[in-house]
Amino acid sequence: MSPEERLAGVLAPRGLTIAVAESCTGGLISSRITDVAGASAYFLAGIVAYSNEAKEEFLSVPRDLLMARGAVSREAAEGMAEGVRRATGADLGLSVTGIAGPGGGTREKPVGTVYIGLCAGTDRLVRLHRFEGDRASIKRQSADEALKLVLDYLEGGLT
Amino acid sequence: MSPEERLAGVLAPRGLTIAVAESCTGGLISSRITDVAGASAYFLAGIVAYSNEAKEEFLSVPRDLLMARGAVSREAAEGMAEGVRRATGADLGLSVTGIAGPGGGTREKPVGTVYIGLCAGTDRLVRLHRFEGDRASIKRQSADEALKLVLDYLEGGLT
Repeated sequence: MSPEERLAGVLAPRGLTIAVAESCTGGLISSRITDVAGASAYFLAGIVAYSNEAKEEFLSVPRDLLMARGAVSREAAEGMAEGVRRATGADLGLSVTGIAGPGGGTREKPVGTVYIGLCAGTDRLVRLHRFEGDRASIKRQSADEALKLVLDYLEGGLT
Repeated sequence: MSPEERLAGVLAPRGLTIAVAESCTGGLISSRITDVAGASAYFLAGIVAYSNEAKEEFLSVPRDLLMARGAVSREAAEGMAEGVRRATGADLGLSVTGIAGPGGGTREKPVGTVYIGLCAGTDRLVRLHRFEGDRASIKRQSADEALKLVLDYLEGGLT
């Protein structure tokens, strides 16, 4: 069973809803969640906030935070997850921000640096990944790990 | 060359930007556009507005319009395209709203009914499609035709 099918199995029976804020995955997570028939019961919205302006406009991530910490940061991931949850009223807010490459990497934050954020109730979770591979592979790994984070959280697999 | 690579070729050299509002495609169009390295130069944001509330909140599509015409309608497609363009300041606003199935179809609007909208300058374009196939196929055909509409518009292929 695919992660997105497993997601349906943990969200739908509990009546939980989710919304997603994506940067480097570019809509792939939302697209995979909505591959599952009946996803409209628990998937409210996805925001693909590629530009900093979109992160401010749709997710209310403060410009100061983006300037001080960078759009690819623990703080931005947390702000995006909270922002999309608040804007949609979903139970869970999931976010991904990272550098899919081939450009945009730095010594401190090389290509493949990806933060995944989740907020639910008063919980705030952020995981840092360093993926290897090309742009398509980094997008796919990021989406896989984002779905996995939600499943770990709801199925009790957090370590 | 894929439609998304051709899109890069028509947008980037002219300095044009695009934003996308998706319903039944669920993020697939944004994901395909951002499969192309350097897409951040012309892709500003994507909104996956699955619920009516998301269409109101992020795209400013009036609730009255959604109630009177339905979320799958020519008017909703136009409102979504205009809404995402206005919210992002993009040159082009592209939208898709439809019924990917397997549920949700009616006699008047069967599964596979998909409206694709585009706004640019003072132009407003909406195309109605009736796709056949399963959910994945309808998503893919909708994304293909949405990208094709932009290419037709910018390359002069409108009939």
